[in-house]
Amino acid sequence: MKTRKAEIICTGSELLSGQINLYVPLFHERLSGLGFEITREQSCGDSLASIKDCLAGALARTRLVITCGGLGPTFDDLTRQAAARLLGRRLVYSETCAQILRHNYGLSELPPNFRDQCLIVEGAKQLENANGTACGQVLTEKGRMLVLLPGPRREWEPMFSSFLDDEIMEFFGNAVPVTQVKLRTAGLKEPEAEKLVKPAMARFPSLRYTILAGPGTVDFIIAGDDTRGLVTRAAAACRKLLGRSVYCRGGLTLAGAVGEKLKRAGRTVAGAESCTGGLVSQLITENAGSSDYFNGCAVTYSNEAKSALLGVKRSTLEKHGAVSGECAAEMAAGARKAFGSDYAYSVTGVAGPGGGTAAKPVGLVWLGLAGPGLKKVYSRKFRGERANVRTFAANFILDELRKVIK
Amino acid sequence: MKTRKAEIICTGSELLSGQINLYVPLFHERLSGLGFEITREQSCGDSLASIKDCLAGALARTRLVITCGGLGPTFDDLTRQAAARLLGRRLVYSETCAQILRHNYGLSELPPNFRDQCLIVEGAKQLENANGTACGQVLTEKGRMLVLLPGPRREWEPMFSSFLDDEIMEFFGNAVPVTQVKLRTAGLKEPEAEKLVKPAMARFPSLRYTILAGPGTVDFIIAGDDTRGLVTRAAAACRKLLGRSVYCRGGLTLAGAVGEKLKRAGRTVAGAESCTGGLVSQLITENAGSSDYFNGCAVTYSNEAKSALLGVKRSTLEKHGAVSGECAAEMAAGARKAFGSDYAYSVTGVAGPGGGTAAKPVGLVWLGLAGPGLKKVYSRKFRGERANVRTFAANFILDELRKVIK
Repeated sequence: MKTRKAEIICTGSELLSGQINLYVPLFHERLSGLGFEITREQSCGDSLASIKDCLAGALARTRLVITCGGLGPTFDDLTRQAAARLLGRRLVYSETCAQILRHNYGLSELPPNFRDQCLIVEGAKQLENANGTACGQVLTEKGRMLVLLPGPRREWEPMFSSFLDDEIMEFFGNAVPVTQVKLRTAGLKEPEAEKLVKPAMARFPSLRYTILAGPGTVDFIIAGDDTRGLVTRAAAACRKLLGRSVYCRGGLTLAGAVGEKLKRAGRTVAGAESCTGGLVSQLITENAGSSDYFNGCAVTYSNEAKSALLGVKRSTLEKHGAVSGECAAEMAAGARKAFGSDYAYSVTGVAGPGGGTAAKPVGLVWLGLAGPGLKKVYSRKFRGERANVRTFAANFILDELRKVIK
Repeated sequence: MKTRKAEIICTGSELLSGQINLYVPLFHERLSGLGFEITREQSCGDSLASIKDCLAGALARTRLVITCGGLGPTFDDLTRQAAARLLGRRLVYSETCAQILRHNYGLSELPPNFRDQCLIVEGAKQLENANGTACGQVLTEKGRMLVLLPGPRREWEPMFSSFLDDEIMEFFGNAVPVTQVKLRTAGLKEPEAEKLVKPAMARFPSLRYTILAGPGTVDFIIAGDDTRGLVTRAAAACRKLLGRSVYCRGGLTLAGAVGEKLKRAGRTVAGAESCTGGLVSQLITENAGSSDYFNGCAVTYSNEAKSALLGVKRSTLEKHGAVSGECAAEMAAGARKAFGSDYAYSVTGVAGPGGGTAAKPVGLVWLGLAGPGLKKVYSRKFRGERANVRTFAANFILDELRKVIK
């Protein structure tokens, strides 16, 4: 498959000193629809030399380069200057920009800071900004296109549908858009997942594959040209190879997939959590409409609460301790009863960093499931720090719950 | 003040196809403490040529380059190969890595995928990974340092305090480190916070100020050279101006600050959550040692559960509904009783997107506090989508709880 390549350059010192860059996924969405793959993103500070260097590299590597930011009227807005210097062009006053600004802001004469906004790189085509003063600029040279966009999303995003999609399609011609399928799995380790899908990857070598490991989950992304159904067939083959580990194709989280399954089965669930402290419950209720199938959860940190709310027997706690299969089983059964649900899960363990012993080390977690004719306990030793142990435990029990729902 | 320059390279096709890069701000925090400013960040896909090209450019421009990602055992993990090729070095099997892996995973012999993880660039110093299989690698050449880190935060972050801070300081020598003070506030809107601190900013104009707004929280960062105590004095001035809104100076989360206050007061807390689904409980229990002050939480999604577990009166639910001040008050009182805690909080509301009515629109949340001689309810209308409403509500009640603990 021939994908066309594009690069993104984001300017602004804030992106290198504390602010998260939220825009790359948005550019990806825009550009993949036009048949472009983003092959590199660069963030650089508000320095003329730095912006110029980023531009030079990107234009040497790819035919489409889009910059975002640095078109404002203040001292640290330097993108147009950098582009002009790199291309050896002048900055010129654009009467078209001036007209647009006068019209949009209802001014008969432009104040100085607005006049600065009318400076464009010689030969650039302007893209009207419906929500700000900085025009976008489209520059072409030697079969390449450089697009300068303002920084704020509300300013640059509308430029795509109004003008830029057409400009790009006209310059580069129609392309095949990239289709992307995401298979989400739980319960597999990354190398196991890779081993399983290898035969499918070998059968469809022209596609792109990405594998993403999370705590107890692995996402597998297949991307390419689907005009002859290649992506669809590769995804079906991978899905078959991954089997029951696939909890969804697309955007649902693991807890979301559990919710969908409960809804389809007309079942409800409740929980009892100790070391996860409400994490599983929180993941389930992130999903809108979860009140249809989620009754609630008892987060019982103390032994007293385990007995009072869930009916865990004092003798169980004394004999086996709170971190035990016996306690996990009684917690799940107790939650099922207390909340009157079809299913219930339980988690009790040592999340760490303190509280571990030789017999019950940090990372040891007992988990339980209760349901119609169902009573299961699991013990696992999860690695890593507190947050890791908790997330692994949450994903583990969500995945087991997913598999037993009928 | 002389700052030293560093560049970051993040590898992984996911960063160019839909996933937000959350790590640049974290690297900024780490490196600014060591006196480094990040001058460029590059994200590139899992391509050997591309990673190598990013590395070559970064090493030509700066003396410290850190890569993140691409050290796993699968086909698309190519960072060590790229580094080896660029530097003209071989990949060699590291017995030290093998020993670490055997020890950490309790294995007498390593399976093949673990063995691949022992390949390091010739001459690299290994950084032990406490939460995964990929060692970090520190390479030096011609006065430059290249650091290869694994992708997941839980794997690379601990490497800094355990090894990397020292490695960097030893190689580059002591610099005037940038001192950074973070004042974390809750209950203020961003423009309010900014207005409050303006006088202090004017008094200390040579320092750098950053303001970061979250849902219901605002962080205020003051950075600069503190050799003459400027940062300390500016921070004290800002703190005074921000008053009781400051919940901590430094790294604690809002829930962590609540926990510290409970611990100091020798008090315990429990919760009752409806629309937040266990989020508050989860935030509290993220903190190690929270079992000292947290008894538990009843996540009661259904009305039945509110009555059964928390003793909310049927008549209250019938007359006022679950989203009401009366219900919030009974939930808090019920949680305090059920868990035998000193304090209890409650949250009940319409998180959306469904379930809103004219009288009880999406975003309406009732919250309660109960304690010794304390009985409070609040109603708030939070804006935005489900996740936003839930997080705003959680931060609101945590902040109110913080203020009443005695």
